[in-house]
Amino acid sequence: MLLSVLYIIGITAEAMTGALSAGRRTMDWFGVMLVASATAIGGGTVRDILLGHYPLGWVKHPEFLVITCIAGVITTGFARWIIQLKGIFIRLDALGLVVFTIIGTNVGIEMGLHPFICVVSGLVTGVFGGLLRDLICRQTPLVLHHELYASISVMASSLYLTMLYFNVDILVTTVVTLIIGYILRMASVRFKWRLPSFKLENGETIH
Amino acid sequence: MLLSVLYIIGITAEAMTGALSAGRRTMDWFGVMLVASATAIGGGTVRDILLGHYPLGWVKHPEFLVITCIAGVITTGFARWIIQLKGIFIRLDALGLVVFTIIGTNVGIEMGLHPFICVVSGLVTGVFGGLLRDLICRQTPLVLHHELYASISVMASSLYLTMLYFNVDILVTTVVTLIIGYILRMASVRFKWRLPSFKLENGETIH
Amino acid sequence: MLLSVLYIIGITAEAMTGALSAGRRTMDWFGVMLVASATAIGGGTVRDILLGHYPLGWVKHPEFLVITCIAGVITTGFARWIIQLKGIFIRLDALGLVVFTIIGTNVGIEMGLHPFICVVSGLVTGVFGGLLRDLICRQTPLVLHHELYASISVMASSLYLTMLYFNVDILVTTVVTLIIGYILRMASVRFKWRLPSFKLENGETIH
Repeated sequence: MLLSVLYIIGITAEAMTGALSAGRRTMDWFGVMLVASATAIGGGTVRDILLGHYPLGWVKHPEFLVITCIAGVITTGFARWIIQLKGIFIRLDALGLVVFTIIGTNVGIEMGLHPFICVVSGLVTGVFGGLLRDLICRQTPLVLHHELYASISVMASSLYLTMLYFNVDILVTTVVTLIIGYILRMASVRFKWRLPSFKLENGETIH
Repeated sequence: MLLSVLYIIGITAEAMTGALSAGRRTMDWFGVMLVASATAIGGGTVRDILLGHYPLGWVKHPEFLVITCIAGVITTGFARWIIQLKGIFIRLDALGLVVFTIIGTNVGIEMGLHPFICVVSGLVTGVFGGLLRDLICRQTPLVLHHELYASISVMASSLYLTMLYFNVDILVTTVVTLIIGYILRMASVRFKWRLPSFKLENGETIH
Repeated sequence: MLLSVLYIIGITAEAMTGALSAGRRTMDWFGVMLVASATAIGGGTVRDILLGHYPLGWVKHPEFLVITCIAGVITTGFARWIIQLKGIFIRLDALGLVVFTIIGTNVGIEMGLHPFICVVSGLVTGVFGGLLRDLICRQTPLVLHHELYASISVMASSLYLTMLYFNVDILVTTVVTLIIGYILRMASVRFKWRLPSFKLENGETIH
């Protein structure tokens, strides 16, 4: 229940960030709806395809797709206001990352998969929406060279699995994971925590 | 039967447009066949993967894949002639769009999906081939910022579903959808009908 | 058994080439692991999704994914040494291409698919990892305009199927395919064998 409400807030916020990316590439309304939907529900879609977990969420619940399309089109009308709400979006995105991660981890658990694959399932759900957005809009994916993002997803998923393993109550586990994941993400934005990065010159290649 | 014949004409024409895109990126024959096939049968493939509708069309009917590969390679030899047939290709592409849309909508109906998802199924079938072509060839997808294209697919699919809902004969429904969809597409090319587009400056971002 | 050992060598080598590509785009460790994994196991993943062959290899054997992630991160520390081993990598990549092709062809055979689709299955397994790497790193895919690569995969797969058709022993078939495929690939690198390529000027378009 808690997760469902947070999920709908999460896909709405992600759809809006997708629509803004589409706007920077001057797309029409269809493009805006496509990028908004890919950003918001692309992570869960990729996860379900990789795990063979059919039917996809938005095929079973078309209302999710309707929400993301509407959120995308509304964004085109209120873009300047939304951009001024930047601070709120960073918070919603942090929350969405953890919510998507928990939902993805749960799918892995329900399918009886190996814990490592459950973490991958959470990671894909949390991170691939943004990756798809940046691929379609032809930007080098932000998630690959910015503050901790994927790592937060891996940590949140591992924490969640560990607490469940030690029989902690599922509601407590969910709330604790949400709080710790959110705080870690906001701290990494605030203090610019990053993973070590890897840089080669163009000439250095083995192809 | 009518749809099968039109489908084969459609994938041949789409394969040829894909091959021309590959040529503008100087690809070899394998690249040409890959882009040709992705353009022609990529939409149906993405649809079937999203809906979990296995086996894929070209796995069951390998001849479709053979046709697109041959059409692609033939295009490399006759590119200059084909380019002069531009007017014919715009017509074939318009027809293909509606044919693919109807086929995709039918898949949704057969799987007993929600009408909204049937429309999405038709849309993905009609539009994603061209999207894949532009992604592989690293162009900003045409479908996202040009004349009405995706919208025609949505309108055709909705018309088709509405007529079937009111028990209109399936052959009549198919022919009427083909004619109206084709006319709408050609009119939008002729009169440059477009969806409202959405443009932001690069600095306007919330990331 | 032979194929399993060669497979693990193959995914390790491919993961390392993926990590080097990520380094040329200055990605963080997560990006490195993502590109490394996509390069190494992306071909098999795309094949399994296209054929509806679930569960995916790395979902059933998470250790494969662990290997590619570790190989990717190790590469970041030893990049300069690895680059000097260029000659070894070209050999490992040639071997990997044939190994992946045989494994993919076998999946098609086990699923009872048409021989042409078995060849496509081998081709996708052999070639799509590199394609995904180049798409994520936003390079025009090497496989589409360099020495014979995809063609080697098609030839190896066809040879393999033909020998099995004539009831040659499976071990003999595998070893012969490996040797001939490897020699053909190394010869095409050495003598710069290429497929005819197809080039159009930018203005020549039918869109």
